[in-house]
Amino acid sequence: MIRRNIFENISPLDHRYSLREEEYQDYKKYLSEKARIGYQLQVEAALVKVLAKREICPAEVAGELLEVVKDITVEEVYQEEKKTRHDIRALVNCIQKRVSDQAKPYVHFTTTSFDIVDTANSLRLKETSRELIIPTLIKLEKMLMDLADREKETVQIGRTHGQHAVPVTFGFTIAEYVSRLGNRIEEIGKKSQLLRGKIAGAVGAYNASHLFFDEPDEFEAEVLAELGLKAGSHSTQIVEPEYVTDFVHSIVSCFGVLANLSDDMRHLQRSEIAEVGEYFDKDQVGSSTMPHKRNPINYENVKSLWKEFMPRMITLYQDQISEHQRDLTNSASGRFIPEIVVGLLSAANRLIRVFSKLAVDYDNIKKNFTLNKEMIVAEPLYILLASYGHPDAHEAVRRLTLEAQESGKTLRELIPEKDELKAYLERFTARQREILANPEEYTGIAGKKTEAVIQKWQKKLKILGGV
Amino acid sequence: MIRRNIFENISPLDHRYSLREEEYQDYKKYLSEKARIGYQLQVEAALVKVLAKREICPAEVAGELLEVVKDITVEEVYQEEKKTRHDIRALVNCIQKRVSDQAKPYVHFTTTSFDIVDTANSLRLKETSRELIIPTLIKLEKMLMDLADREKETVQIGRTHGQHAVPVTFGFTIAEYVSRLGNRIEEIGKKSQLLRGKIAGAVGAYNASHLFFDEPDEFEAEVLAELGLKAGSHSTQIVEPEYVTDFVHSIVSCFGVLANLSDDMRHLQRSEIAEVGEYFDKDQVGSSTMPHKRNPINYENVKSLWKEFMPRMITLYQDQISEHQRDLTNSASGRFIPEIVVGLLSAANRLIRVFSKLAVDYDNIKKNFTLNKEMIVAEPLYILLASYGHPDAHEAVRRLTLEAQESGKTLRELIPEKDELKAYLERFTARQREILANPEEYTGIAGKKTEAVIQKWQKKLKILGGV
Amino acid sequence: MIRRNIFENISPLDHRYSLREEEYQDYKKYLSEKARIGYQLQVEAALVKVLAKREICPAEVAGELLEVVKDITVEEVYQEEKKTRHDIRALVNCIQKRVSDQAKPYVHFTTTSFDIVDTANSLRLKETSRELIIPTLIKLEKMLMDLADREKETVQIGRTHGQHAVPVTFGFTIAEYVSRLGNRIEEIGKKSQLLRGKIAGAVGAYNASHLFFDEPDEFEAEVLAELGLKAGSHSTQIVEPEYVTDFVHSIVSCFGVLANLSDDMRHLQRSEIAEVGEYFDKDQVGSSTMPHKRNPINYENVKSLWKEFMPRMITLYQDQISEHQRDLTNSASGRFIPEIVVGLLSAANRLIRVFSKLAVDYDNIKKNFTLNKEMIVAEPLYILLASYGHPDAHEAVRRLTLEAQESGKTLRELIPEKDELKAYLERFTARQREILANPEEYTGIAGKKTEAVIQKWQKKLKILGGV
Amino acid sequence: MIRRNIFENISPLDHRYSLREEEYQDYKKYLSEKARIGYQLQVEAALVKVLAKREICPAEVAGELLEVVKDITVEEVYQEEKKTRHDIRALVNCIQKRVSDQAKPYVHFTTTSFDIVDTANSLRLKETSRELIIPTLIKLEKMLMDLADREKETVQIGRTHGQHAVPVTFGFTIAEYVSRLGNRIEEIGKKSQLLRGKIAGAVGAYNASHLFFDEPDEFEAEVLAELGLKAGSHSTQIVEPEYVTDFVHSIVSCFGVLANLSDDMRHLQRSEIAEVGEYFDKDQVGSSTMPHKRNPINYENVKSLWKEFMPRMITLYQDQISEHQRDLTNSASGRFIPEIVVGLLSAANRLIRVFSKLAVDYDNIKKNFTLNKEMIVAEPLYILLASYGHPDAHEAVRRLTLEAQESGKTLRELIPEKDELKAYLERFTARQREILANPEEYTGIAGKKTEAVIQKWQKKLKILGGV
Repeated sequence: MIRRNIFENISPLDHRYSLREEEYQDYKKYLSEKARIGYQLQVEAALVKVLAKREICPAEVAGELLEVVKDITVEEVYQEEKKTRHDIRALVNCIQKRVSDQAKPYVHFTTTSFDIVDTANSLRLKETSRELIIPTLIKLEKMLMDLADREKETVQIGRTHGQHAVPVTFGFTIAEYVSRLGNRIEEIGKKSQLLRGKIAGAVGAYNASHLFFDEPDEFEAEVLAELGLKAGSHSTQIVEPEYVTDFVHSIVSCFGVLANLSDDMRHLQRSEIAEVGEYFDKDQVGSSTMPHKRNPINYENVKSLWKEFMPRMITLYQDQISEHQRDLTNSASGRFIPEIVVGLLSAANRLIRVFSKLAVDYDNIKKNFTLNKEMIVAEPLYILLASYGHPDAHEAVRRLTLEAQESGKTLRELIPEKDELKAYLERFTARQREILANPEEYTGIAGKKTEAVIQKWQKKLKILGGV
Repeated sequence: MIRRNIFENISPLDHRYSLREEEYQDYKKYLSEKARIGYQLQVEAALVKVLAKREICPAEVAGELLEVVKDITVEEVYQEEKKTRHDIRALVNCIQKRVSDQAKPYVHFTTTSFDIVDTANSLRLKETSRELIIPTLIKLEKMLMDLADREKETVQIGRTHGQHAVPVTFGFTIAEYVSRLGNRIEEIGKKSQLLRGKIAGAVGAYNASHLFFDEPDEFEAEVLAELGLKAGSHSTQIVEPEYVTDFVHSIVSCFGVLANLSDDMRHLQRSEIAEVGEYFDKDQVGSSTMPHKRNPINYENVKSLWKEFMPRMITLYQDQISEHQRDLTNSASGRFIPEIVVGLLSAANRLIRVFSKLAVDYDNIKKNFTLNKEMIVAEPLYILLASYGHPDAHEAVRRLTLEAQESGKTLRELIPEKDELKAYLERFTARQREILANPEEYTGIAGKKTEAVIQKWQKKLKILGGV
Repeated sequence: MIRRNIFENISPLDHRYSLREEEYQDYKKYLSEKARIGYQLQVEAALVKVLAKREICPAEVAGELLEVVKDITVEEVYQEEKKTRHDIRALVNCIQKRVSDQAKPYVHFTTTSFDIVDTANSLRLKETSRELIIPTLIKLEKMLMDLADREKETVQIGRTHGQHAVPVTFGFTIAEYVSRLGNRIEEIGKKSQLLRGKIAGAVGAYNASHLFFDEPDEFEAEVLAELGLKAGSHSTQIVEPEYVTDFVHSIVSCFGVLANLSDDMRHLQRSEIAEVGEYFDKDQVGSSTMPHKRNPINYENVKSLWKEFMPRMITLYQDQISEHQRDLTNSASGRFIPEIVVGLLSAANRLIRVFSKLAVDYDNIKKNFTLNKEMIVAEPLYILLASYGHPDAHEAVRRLTLEAQESGKTLRELIPEKDELKAYLERFTARQREILANPEEYTGIAGKKTEAVIQKWQKKLKILGGV
Repeated sequence: MIRRNIFENISPLDHRYSLREEEYQDYKKYLSEKARIGYQLQVEAALVKVLAKREICPAEVAGELLEVVKDITVEEVYQEEKKTRHDIRALVNCIQKRVSDQAKPYVHFTTTSFDIVDTANSLRLKETSRELIIPTLIKLEKMLMDLADREKETVQIGRTHGQHAVPVTFGFTIAEYVSRLGNRIEEIGKKSQLLRGKIAGAVGAYNASHLFFDEPDEFEAEVLAELGLKAGSHSTQIVEPEYVTDFVHSIVSCFGVLANLSDDMRHLQRSEIAEVGEYFDKDQVGSSTMPHKRNPINYENVKSLWKEFMPRMITLYQDQISEHQRDLTNSASGRFIPEIVVGLLSAANRLIRVFSKLAVDYDNIKKNFTLNKEMIVAEPLYILLASYGHPDAHEAVRRLTLEAQESGKTLRELIPEKDELKAYLERFTARQREILANPEEYTGIAGKKTEAVIQKWQKKLKILGGV
């Protein structure tokens, strides 16, 4: 066994981002090279299981093989590959060495390397989605749902273009991410279910298996069924690439949602805004020279990981192209797909940690709201004037806001001074006047909408997560 | 009206790739700036229609507005924008100028710019998908289906790594693209159906519309229903970006399939392979200095367009990120999305043209097949030996092929000479022996599979294309 | 001539972003299809000029051709291409139709299409750099230099991680962009000078020209010299791609600097920060529903254009790959390079406009500075304590800042209360004490450094811009 | 020390692509996390060295520290980081723990984390370039030069669009890559020399160091000089990003050249072309089911790695953007840069191995040349006819080639039959007739040019590699 000091590794995923033991055990279980070989052995085992069911080989051969694949180590496969220079042939040799002569011929029977490789990849990504990716994201989703619920009536200034616009609630702000992340979880679920396998031989025409079976596609279906997979409608040496392209798109686009959430949170943490913060450990250092600083490093980290992994989608798009019945130029690149998954998981786990330490500064939320409170009235005023027949309400209010800025008076002070508005104002309902008088009530249905979003995703998560 | 010599345009899409009048008319109808404004006017009209239905405004106001939006020109909107520096405010002003004072207040009632912009974009992309993208792709799909059907029994050497492997049929080769393109058409269909609109105001909390409606989300639903759209589960100033991200992914990944098809065809057109060609017009020039050349320029063009448009998916991923209730950094970039659609359509239309002139050179298909015909036997021989109990069949055959290469004898000649193989050979069935004797019969179920793929997509296209 | 309503164009570059007449005239002159053909005609002319110099053809032939190329229109070339389906053959035919029989043979003499295409592209990009790109960027650079100079002593809080750190000056903030933009201008200058041409024939081995010249590479050098170009060290049918790859990298990385500048400015324009703003025209509308808003739309636009054009570098990297003596899969994609240039120019011109209307809010700069003024002292205090021998200064000050936050006292108040610090404080110099007492003086050499940066680039610009 | 089974690592770089012990030792030395910390310690040491030179601290303090940094392990730094949650503060603490109280205050004196991080990164990338990247690439370059030299007169058909064009020599084909790779080596050399450091404090204004030095930029220059580095013209908390952006561009664009070379070689290895091959080890397996296959897996691997690493340039372009005096969103992503370097080195080392086993099949080169030998004459014929005054030579020859295709006669047979050509043919020189009679002589100056390219790079390499 080749053991290596982890700090002598190259990839940050193999030193810095896998230092938390619990997370790393998860990554390793599904996404390491060892795990990869493990999934390939499962495919070889499924193959022989069906051969036995169909009485092509004796039942004991399948039994023998199912035992053997448990023992084979990644190390011996790599050792053998030094000789064969071919990874799957090495795997096959390792199995054959350990089984009886009777069993040998049925190992890898009629299949080509990529029957094993592609089927194992789909199996791995599907299992990782169900058992690791989706549960992790659901954990984050639930934290967001709780937060949104708690803050659904906390009035916060809405911001567009970085400028104060009209009010929302902080819960409504978070509900955006409940919805978007929920949608992405659902998409990952769907696209992982669509991952496909193949047992169709060297060029996908079942040339070899047809030597033994009249309906080799049914044989294929049986083998894949052992693994909970289906075949695509056509394959060459490889499974049609688009199943994986779509799956990785669902991962990458989910990453984008986490990056946006992180950007929002870190901007809310700016010194001048300071609506949220992160509880710091007593010993934690914010800056090596500025002992007073509390930096939003976790959100920055998530954004940064997104910048690292998002562009890799280009690799997937390029890997859609494989010449004729396939070339191997998607082989090395395909080996890096697990990195993207680890990137996403690392970001999600970090957000789970940081949201558990989230500090909301209600004073600052209120202070910021107050800053332009007087201007918020402009929108409802313009709309109400228009609705009551003012012929040029937008322009009238625009000029009023200019006057407010120049005179130092508030809009609420200026409005009653304007004779030309009087006729309209009198027709406003009581509720409409109340909103003009209390801009913090101008939150639309932010609270109700937040609730609706949460309820929708509570129902959906039950289905998605089997909770 | 500003008219410009098209060759004074910057973008190749506005000179070179829109020279075919018929194609250009299609692109223009859906994807020009004029079309964009047209869709926005439809949204403004739908809004007032519902206001009338709900008796917020008199029925004649809606009637008036429905007439007016037909007449408004993109030119007057841009003229007005010079003053307002705001595109939607310009649009609104243009409408208001043309309607009665009674109608003015109901124009753009309670909405924010991006209620109009995002809803119009979804409407446009959805309509373009249904009326232009999908029909164009189905046209190509059908040509591929016809070709696959015609060539389903044409034996062709399968190629992996650019090396001769085992046989397929040319129809089976094409069936790969029937399946992959079909899948993409289906995905474009699904994702275009999922495009969403919004009428939820400046920050998405229905602040303004709630001044008038108790259930402003129902009002939103009604307006969108007029346009055949639905609302997403949550919105800010904008619709959640992922609906468009997914849609463009379906477009870009479809482009990848066309690029792969083109790569395969142009390699099959290489001088040494020459299995396919393109009928040249009598006057067409292949090269400016080499009058004898027949270059696969159409396939090269499709590949090249893919290289131009595929990377733009990065823009979409970046546009998932918008700060707080939105920033405008997705505005300019979002305007370029129609270019990607035109890129795909241009490529698809070109393939339709070139496949209608496809020349298949059966002599060369046969000649190439013959080149390594004797080696093809290696695979079935190895598999059959293994199945009849040879303990190390792969290695035995590998050495046999080396001997064949060194001795100049064929595998079929060497096989009977090997005493150690005799015991196994005797157990082969008649059909198995036949295949060893006739490598061109070693095509698995290539023909049957091709038929199955075609039938599957014939059924699906009926649903997809409403044919 | 095909004229088209510009709003019926597809690309925003051909409607929205080319509406300013003056800018558009520049873009058109260098970067339209018409301009492209014009540069190709220049190459054909240079070729014949050298043939005449070398007395291969009569002098009058060159004279005739030099006249003719002035008259040829892009329209007739495209008309001819309908027949030839080959753009350069069409160009050649158009020239030949207009010249005497005597001259005909010398048109396009010994060259292949891409001798003309690639040489013309290099010529165009080089001229556009010198005459348009660099002057535009220098204009922006000078505005930044003036601003930096004016604000070199305006104390501003430095921000890292969006958190208040220690002071800089606003001029120093801007000097960052003087330096980075200056560096990019220099890089664009260098890489544009390195653009190369070729007159080496169909596969780059001078096969045709060697029929007439013993040293065809010298002939090539002479033709290129007519255009102010050189040949690369090797070419195939095309010039080595890396010259253009590098050039576009210089453009794209310059775009990144503009995007960063824009991001910084729009964040400084946030409602809570509000240190800069943009003077609005009296009639300008900020929002369609919120009449009071002043949105940083210009900076947002620049960021958005960067998101659109930056990813296109992937196309350039893909276009490095061309099979054997070349395939044509870089042809369509290569036609889009001028779009990237227009994107950059459009962004730069917009920044020039917006910086001419920049409003600096000194009150807010001061207000923001004051917000954490008391905490700034932490850094110099820690460093000074350390330098005077405090064994654990960083930790001591970190705890002091925690105490300050909890107690509500300022650091400056707490410091004298701490007996353990007394011994160190007494050893501080007068200047050091002054800084602790006046945090706004803790700006290092921000002002001096700003001056140095400006001076450096003043000198460099003289060389770069020939000013 | 945390040791881990390498097959439990996630990144292929940390299992599959670092299995070759010799290569891995190189990667580890420069590009592992351990190496990173080592470079940071060097920067901390250089800082104190200059403090001693300037007599800010006693000479023995510097001596003490220089010893200590040799002993500090990455493990203890990471152990300390668990407490501080800040990597550089952890590093500083580790140093301080090991030095005398007298020395403690001078550790990290006046610097901010990124003074250390960015300076160390530049130092690392610069050293890696000089000591590892450039020597590796030069090794490959020399192999290409030897090959080009050996094959400079081996006539090979030139291919454009995958179609036979006119002849080159195989050496000339390779000379393309001598030139392009040479150019990239030179560019990597230049851009690595331009990498910059900084010792300018938390916001780049030398706030802290100016407490002690009147000319803190001179102090910075001295520290950097210890490391063989210079400062950029301006910095914030970080060095201007473009130095690294440019450097990685040079790496990525070099990768593109290797990918193109690999694509060319694998196409030349196609079954139908088979001009080159790779000597296989006796035990090597080509395919798991097709024992006869010889796949160009090494070239495919290089192409595949390029697809993996090229898109990461997008990360670098995004990392140009850092808000105000910096945000940390480039931190995680910046840690992945060494992966790109390892990707390139892995590809280059693979090419070095595969070129050492390159088999050239002269028979096939000849056979392929002969395939269209008769058509090659078309180009010189057209050009010569034109030069001797034929008014429409291109068209005449185009028609002649059509006739040749239809009649089955060769061009050389048809030419004398055409009366209309006779007058021109008579004027051809002897050499010109000879070429028409012997198309294999129509190679221009392929051989001479190959020599010139080799000589140019021999000279340049002497400078670049110090050979």
